[in-house]
Amino acid sequence: MLEKLKEEVCQANLDLVDHGLVIFTWGNVSAIDRESGLVVIKPSGVSYDGMSPEDMVVVDLEGNVVEGKYKPSSDTATHLVLYKNFPNIGGVVHTHSEWATSWAQAGKSIPAVGTTHADYFYGTVPCTRKMTAEEIKTAYELETGNVIVECFQSQNINPDYVPGVLVNNHAPFSWGTDAHNAVHNAVVLEEVAKMTFRSFQLNPDTEMDQLLLDKHFLRKHGANAYYGQK
Amino acid sequence: MLEKLKEEVCQANLDLVDHGLVIFTWGNVSAIDRESGLVVIKPSGVSYDGMSPEDMVVVDLEGNVVEGKYKPSSDTATHLVLYKNFPNIGGVVHTHSEWATSWAQAGKSIPAVGTTHADYFYGTVPCTRKMTAEEIKTAYELETGNVIVECFQSQNINPDYVPGVLVNNHAPFSWGTDAHNAVHNAVVLEEVAKMTFRSFQLNPDTEMDQLLLDKHFLRKHGANAYYGQK
Amino acid sequence: MLEKLKEEVCQANLDLVDHGLVIFTWGNVSAIDRESGLVVIKPSGVSYDGMSPEDMVVVDLEGNVVEGKYKPSSDTATHLVLYKNFPNIGGVVHTHSEWATSWAQAGKSIPAVGTTHADYFYGTVPCTRKMTAEEIKTAYELETGNVIVECFQSQNINPDYVPGVLVNNHAPFSWGTDAHNAVHNAVVLEEVAKMTFRSFQLNPDTEMDQLLLDKHFLRKHGANAYYGQK
Amino acid sequence: MLEKLKEEVCQANLDLVDHGLVIFTWGNVSAIDRESGLVVIKPSGVSYDGMSPEDMVVVDLEGNVVEGKYKPSSDTATHLVLYKNFPNIGGVVHTHSEWATSWAQAGKSIPAVGTTHADYFYGTVPCTRKMTAEEIKTAYELETGNVIVECFQSQNINPDYVPGVLVNNHAPFSWGTDAHNAVHNAVVLEEVAKMTFRSFQLNPDTEMDQLLLDKHFLRKHGANAYYGQK
Repeated sequence: MLEKLKEEVCQANLDLVDHGLVIFTWGNVSAIDRESGLVVIKPSGVSYDGMSPEDMVVVDLEGNVVEGKYKPSSDTATHLVLYKNFPNIGGVVHTHSEWATSWAQAGKSIPAVGTTHADYFYGTVPCTRKMTAEEIKTAYELETGNVIVECFQSQNINPDYVPGVLVNNHAPFSWGTDAHNAVHNAVVLEEVAKMTFRSFQLNPDTEMDQLLLDKHFLRKHGANAYYGQK
Repeated sequence: MLEKLKEEVCQANLDLVDHGLVIFTWGNVSAIDRESGLVVIKPSGVSYDGMSPEDMVVVDLEGNVVEGKYKPSSDTATHLVLYKNFPNIGGVVHTHSEWATSWAQAGKSIPAVGTTHADYFYGTVPCTRKMTAEEIKTAYELETGNVIVECFQSQNINPDYVPGVLVNNHAPFSWGTDAHNAVHNAVVLEEVAKMTFRSFQLNPDTEMDQLLLDKHFLRKHGANAYYGQK
Repeated sequence: MLEKLKEEVCQANLDLVDHGLVIFTWGNVSAIDRESGLVVIKPSGVSYDGMSPEDMVVVDLEGNVVEGKYKPSSDTATHLVLYKNFPNIGGVVHTHSEWATSWAQAGKSIPAVGTTHADYFYGTVPCTRKMTAEEIKTAYELETGNVIVECFQSQNINPDYVPGVLVNNHAPFSWGTDAHNAVHNAVVLEEVAKMTFRSFQLNPDTEMDQLLLDKHFLRKHGANAYYGQK
Repeated sequence: MLEKLKEEVCQANLDLVDHGLVIFTWGNVSAIDRESGLVVIKPSGVSYDGMSPEDMVVVDLEGNVVEGKYKPSSDTATHLVLYKNFPNIGGVVHTHSEWATSWAQAGKSIPAVGTTHADYFYGTVPCTRKMTAEEIKTAYELETGNVIVECFQSQNINPDYVPGVLVNNHAPFSWGTDAHNAVHNAVVLEEVAKMTFRSFQLNPDTEMDQLLLDKHFLRKHGANAYYGQK
């Protein structure tokens, strides 16, 4: 079932390696088939070497394995919370990529200070609050998802316009219209995390005009976009 | 038309990838044929993989497409302003290369503190002022070019001697005698941005004597140059 | 003798190069056969190019060469102290990997501030005290091992839970259940050293809850681990 | 003439590229035949691609070209001063490698704070004083050599024990027993410059005991060395 989606998800997982976002098994990509409500995700702790589409695991939105010879990623519950609460997203990526994770470990959000950021993220990439003892001790991976959703809802951030987040003391999650687009956003987030780290070292007070942010984001997104070919 | 120039521009665009200055479609190179006043430029949002000379777009100095199956780069208007105002340049490069962009996002010019800088840039590589609301809202890409020109004219900087600039909150542009030379200067700018960032972290007060700057720039440029083979 | 272990140790030494942890001859891996009490280790100052299993040296726990055409690594005495005092470890790695060595040269321990750290190291990776004149002048490499053991014993750190250390003004050692696992931990230590350096530059006061540390370490280690396949 | 030395020097120049120490034509290696007093050096401004031994230039210690179809490196006069004043060295390297150059641009010497440094450089790698107007305006490259020699003599540093230097506002020179060894020392200098930069960011007061410095340097150099194979 969902053979095409398995291929896409498998390829997206391998792309994480090519983009230098993961080492060992530190990352996972999933994608959802919105019609059936089924999610295809990387198996847990399996090496990227020789990974193939049939190794992917199919789960429903409650986390039950529907098909697959392996256990799904231990982060599956987090992915599912995102799919349930962010209705327009089609793919989710989790990595411990070095620059975004450095910000997450610092508990710091990444403000928009340049057009590279503005081309993809319409404002600050937020860092979640720390998780409570209760959240950590009970359904940890599910609560990780809930903390992300709370972060976006409480600050009124549109997940379609800011397709990524830093989980405090942990690492980034990103998402997109499909698995490929979610990986693309993970790459951009890493690049932005790297450059903005350095910009603040050069100038701790640097900031960007809202108008310039609007201009770049809306040049590539929404009804009046004019970047790229038609 | 301009087949040789298309080959040069295509190759220069691919060289950006080889030099690690761009990922995805984040960069563009153009070159001008001064006799006809026509500019060859990379198409907008097209991937570097498999890009060939016939994908290049030919525009006139007013931005009208003269030949080509694609839309030209969305930064075309900026390139054209530079060709009109800097009469000796033959090629223009725009990237979001990580170190130069870090300085641009910080709104900081890169002072000359070493001979690597002095060999190619005869003094500070300036960062432009922030753009006004009016400039952003109207002809944004054209105004980006105007802000660069204003930066050089108001500070009396010779663009033939300082072949690059940082656009505030955005990223670098560089130029040269042709497309290949413009890419060369983009690589040097990136290298200088990286090393000078670190030099200031080691010593915030470091500076360079004007005489040493003169010596190195003039050793490679101008009538008395003696570097390289004849 | 111990042909299989020689192959493992040789491969683990070559893996150091592939993971970018060593240049030239700056690193060594060993493994112990607990039954016979014999240790297989890389020869001293021999290049990684063309290194093969038969180049490995077999020594006993007193450092006597039992088999091999080369002198063993000059750090052999340090490895042996670790095997004697940390009874559950099967492999030891020493490198001058760039990020962990930067911390060691600073004389600073690496606190746990993120889950990447917590997945492998159950708390701070300690930096040893400086060695005394007496220790440096007499049996230096042996005393290096003793200082590591003292560091863990005096601070009551379990070496099975914190499989690595920074030797003050020197560089890291790591260990694991076998040579391969010890290299894996060396890679993780390097990654953590890099990211945590940056996290502290972003936020000098960042820290991590003990509960989150527990959760991540125990998710992958011990009786209730649930990460990966069964 | 000196065909074997030309091969060595050509290879050493190419090794600079492989070790990531140079881009474009930013580096040069030479070696001396002490018997004849002739020096083999890279030609000026010639690309590394396709460079072969017959492209090397032979000069005498006064800088006269004895053989070769190209002009010698513009830094030749600096190399010659070093050969004349440091009688035991057989090879000289100049690069603009990124980390060592960052220190040079900052006008800062690199103190020994770790054993990686101590294994090759017996104490601080000094940064020269700034050059005077007179020195810059007259025989600049020759005076660059003189400033290096003055730096070592005035501070009583033995160039055989500290085989490298940072030229203020410029970049590093290193040397060794032959061209290959000089390149090796250039690689170590770069690695040390990188790690020590970070160590000082972590701990601005870090330092290393003289005894540990002695131990590591003398473990690999001098009459009682015991590192490596016999």
